[in-house]
Amino acid sequence: MKSLLLNADMGESLGPWVMGLDHQVMPHVDLANIACGFHASDPDVMRRTVRMAAEHSVGIGAHPAYPDLIGFGRRSLACSPTEIENLVLYQVGALAAICRAEGTDIRYVKPHGALYNDMARKPEIFSAVARAIRAYNPELPLMTLASRDTSEIQKLARTHGLTLWFEAFADRAYDTHGHLVSRAQPGAVHHDSDVILDQAQRIATGQPLTTSDGSELILTADTLCVHGDNEESVASVRAIRQMLNALGRQA
Amino acid sequence: MKSLLLNADMGESLGPWVMGLDHQVMPHVDLANIACGFHASDPDVMRRTVRMAAEHSVGIGAHPAYPDLIGFGRRSLACSPTEIENLVLYQVGALAAICRAEGTDIRYVKPHGALYNDMARKPEIFSAVARAIRAYNPELPLMTLASRDTSEIQKLARTHGLTLWFEAFADRAYDTHGHLVSRAQPGAVHHDSDVILDQAQRIATGQPLTTSDGSELILTADTLCVHGDNEESVASVRAIRQMLNALGRQA
Amino acid sequence: MKSLLLNADMGESLGPWVMGLDHQVMPHVDLANIACGFHASDPDVMRRTVRMAAEHSVGIGAHPAYPDLIGFGRRSLACSPTEIENLVLYQVGALAAICRAEGTDIRYVKPHGALYNDMARKPEIFSAVARAIRAYNPELPLMTLASRDTSEIQKLARTHGLTLWFEAFADRAYDTHGHLVSRAQPGAVHHDSDVILDQAQRIATGQPLTTSDGSELILTADTLCVHGDNEESVASVRAIRQMLNALGRQA
Amino acid sequence: MKSLLLNADMGESLGPWVMGLDHQVMPHVDLANIACGFHASDPDVMRRTVRMAAEHSVGIGAHPAYPDLIGFGRRSLACSPTEIENLVLYQVGALAAICRAEGTDIRYVKPHGALYNDMARKPEIFSAVARAIRAYNPELPLMTLASRDTSEIQKLARTHGLTLWFEAFADRAYDTHGHLVSRAQPGAVHHDSDVILDQAQRIATGQPLTTSDGSELILTADTLCVHGDNEESVASVRAIRQMLNALGRQA
Repeated sequence: MKSLLLNADMGESLGPWVMGLDHQVMPHVDLANIACGFHASDPDVMRRTVRMAAEHSVGIGAHPAYPDLIGFGRRSLACSPTEIENLVLYQVGALAAICRAEGTDIRYVKPHGALYNDMARKPEIFSAVARAIRAYNPELPLMTLASRDTSEIQKLARTHGLTLWFEAFADRAYDTHGHLVSRAQPGAVHHDSDVILDQAQRIATGQPLTTSDGSELILTADTLCVHGDNEESVASVRAIRQMLNALGRQA
Repeated sequence: MKSLLLNADMGESLGPWVMGLDHQVMPHVDLANIACGFHASDPDVMRRTVRMAAEHSVGIGAHPAYPDLIGFGRRSLACSPTEIENLVLYQVGALAAICRAEGTDIRYVKPHGALYNDMARKPEIFSAVARAIRAYNPELPLMTLASRDTSEIQKLARTHGLTLWFEAFADRAYDTHGHLVSRAQPGAVHHDSDVILDQAQRIATGQPLTTSDGSELILTADTLCVHGDNEESVASVRAIRQMLNALGRQA
Repeated sequence: MKSLLLNADMGESLGPWVMGLDHQVMPHVDLANIACGFHASDPDVMRRTVRMAAEHSVGIGAHPAYPDLIGFGRRSLACSPTEIENLVLYQVGALAAICRAEGTDIRYVKPHGALYNDMARKPEIFSAVARAIRAYNPELPLMTLASRDTSEIQKLARTHGLTLWFEAFADRAYDTHGHLVSRAQPGAVHHDSDVILDQAQRIATGQPLTTSDGSELILTADTLCVHGDNEESVASVRAIRQMLNALGRQA
Repeated sequence: MKSLLLNADMGESLGPWVMGLDHQVMPHVDLANIACGFHASDPDVMRRTVRMAAEHSVGIGAHPAYPDLIGFGRRSLACSPTEIENLVLYQVGALAAICRAEGTDIRYVKPHGALYNDMARKPEIFSAVARAIRAYNPELPLMTLASRDTSEIQKLARTHGLTLWFEAFADRAYDTHGHLVSRAQPGAVHHDSDVILDQAQRIATGQPLTTSDGSELILTADTLCVHGDNEESVASVRAIRQMLNALGRQA
């Protein structure tokens, strides 16, 4: 059984504004999705975050977004595919130069927020992101949402010659299609740490989750997204890491 | 005699706003200083400009600036050296990714506007820019202003292991120190096309210029900065190119 | 017959980038829609444009937009109604202060680009804009698109206590519903100056237009949108102004 | 004896980034300097902050700054006086519209950060700010730094017809000229709550402070700047408020 990697969004501070407990989360994750200045971060925050990731041997992912600081990249912006291709390239390159200055490099790309969601829903946006990655470095995997049936998006990725990394969530409810239940619905987000840990373990071991309508769902995921927003979520990250380490020793 | 390269600022359009006759200038220059989105340009303009430079086999230089679209990077911003180092890295990387997508690469770095001037006046800013380039790729030359005595800045560049490319102007008056006469002074800018062509030829052939106080000045320059702002300046570029070609045939 | 007012988008330059022949258009229009810094313009451009409008006794309208300079406010941004309400207020206020400094004031509000279109299609966005205007000054008319049947939007405006000014276009084809034919369709934009002048006259005199499917359309409009993008469109503005003046003398 | 007003910088959050304990500080101050979107804040934060100030009957001041979110307005930007005049107008107007929507209005102007400091050092920048205020509303006082001898700046303010409000600090050391000791110097900032309270009381009652070189300094101040950055500074604000209230009862 392949081990499940932990990824977290990092480097989301901006100038004087601090966001996230990066220092506490970094030691426990495998992958850091580092903001590139369009939805959060600035060149100094990027430099410090890349350095911290490198010190912990954490794999660095570019985390490009729509240009929208105020909205934190969570608001869709009606860009053309060409605009998306180029703004992804721009952000990936900016982060790559900072990685190079710290003796490291980008290992993958995970679009952020509204761009992440739009990519999963609209093939022309997926293709725009894919073209950017292929043009920059076709070896870089693209992280996207795991769901029940990923055959369509895998087919699309193959036409672009790209590898996908599928990402699952331990703290979100899934519907029967293996999509995340909208945050607008009750029960969309798990807050109980035992529930979160149990869901993480099920994903890590290939056991079924129970969806919002009571059906069973087996998610095939390469990585689990964890959060460093506050002390509580950091405690969850540590618990999930310990669980994964214990699984690894059993294997 | 080494040939004098022609460089021009390019890719200074922004979204719907067009600036510069890039299409008319590109065929006649050797080097294109391409804006990186902080004082001008956007990812789409950068992509188109890089492609055009590549088609004309024009060498691409990163043209990083202070973050100031409204002021076009011409207003000094009191950044710390670390901030400057990182914002140069960020911009160089963004352009480099776009170059890579077009099968080309950055060949040098020329800071823009106020950053260009501040770097020439303040060693700590020069060093910040130099650290960014060295961390990214110490093979990239840094373009800076030619003057009568460049020994200090050459010494500083050597401590950073960097190559300098010295740049002169055919349309600007020089003072006795070999500095540009401030635009606030009368006679600072040459408008007569014959005067401009004559100054270009003197610089290209190592003949002395007459400074604003009547002394002689021999400028040692690797490259001459030309402009594509309007039809008149484009005509000057063509005339200078023909003159340099003729010199080349004589050599 | 009430006279048809001419309005034009103005003050769309940005820092060093010039857009529009404002100086040539201003003498011929009644209303200037002045950009407020979110899709175009900056405080200096706003000041100069307001001053020019005041000198020509042209009525000043705030022209607020989504925050998107690169996209010139033409890309929808998925803002919440509250965000839209507040960003309209912000922009209206910024322009109003500059008007006050020039001894004049805002007379109406016309949202720009994607916000203008979204407002016409989505009642919650219309209401957000309406709340901003009512909170600022309920006497200010809101300019929106004329169409065959405006009863719904008039009803909505009445619930907010707002006056609407309906706007028509002389250079755009209409469909049978009185909506603009999408620019993606052939024939969507009229380029022939006689066709434009004829359509302007029909709108001014209440005569029917022929829609894209051959039906007749009478548009009731308070104002006609004209453009100062280039010499050709300025010539159209002058011709339309002369036509309206001649109609006025006949009345 | 005129009472000393407490002012604090407020509304410095930005999109998802929270800064300052505004809710805890607002009940204890007289004046709120509200950021206008150039160094911090956005239209939504402005609206919420204005509403909170109005609910607590706290006087609202516009807190305009150089356009520099990343640097939080603390880095000087080499703007021309005209640019400064217009960017102050723009920001004052934006906040004023939001005040009007909440049934209140701006009572004064306090420039922020580098603009505040530059204004105190450079008469042409002071005059630019003064022209903006006079053009908008000459009744609005301008807040500036108290020092030993304010005759020059008072003279300059009179030529513009403006009222000055002088501001002092309880947590900063002063030099013999009545200027703030640079933060780069040891002892520049007081951290002991008793020292801060004592300095506040001395300023409120016209008793002398001891300057960094041991001389005595009597500061004539209209208002004292307090901070809501963290729990400790909020505790200081409450202590200063109680001290001032007790002084008021004695009077």
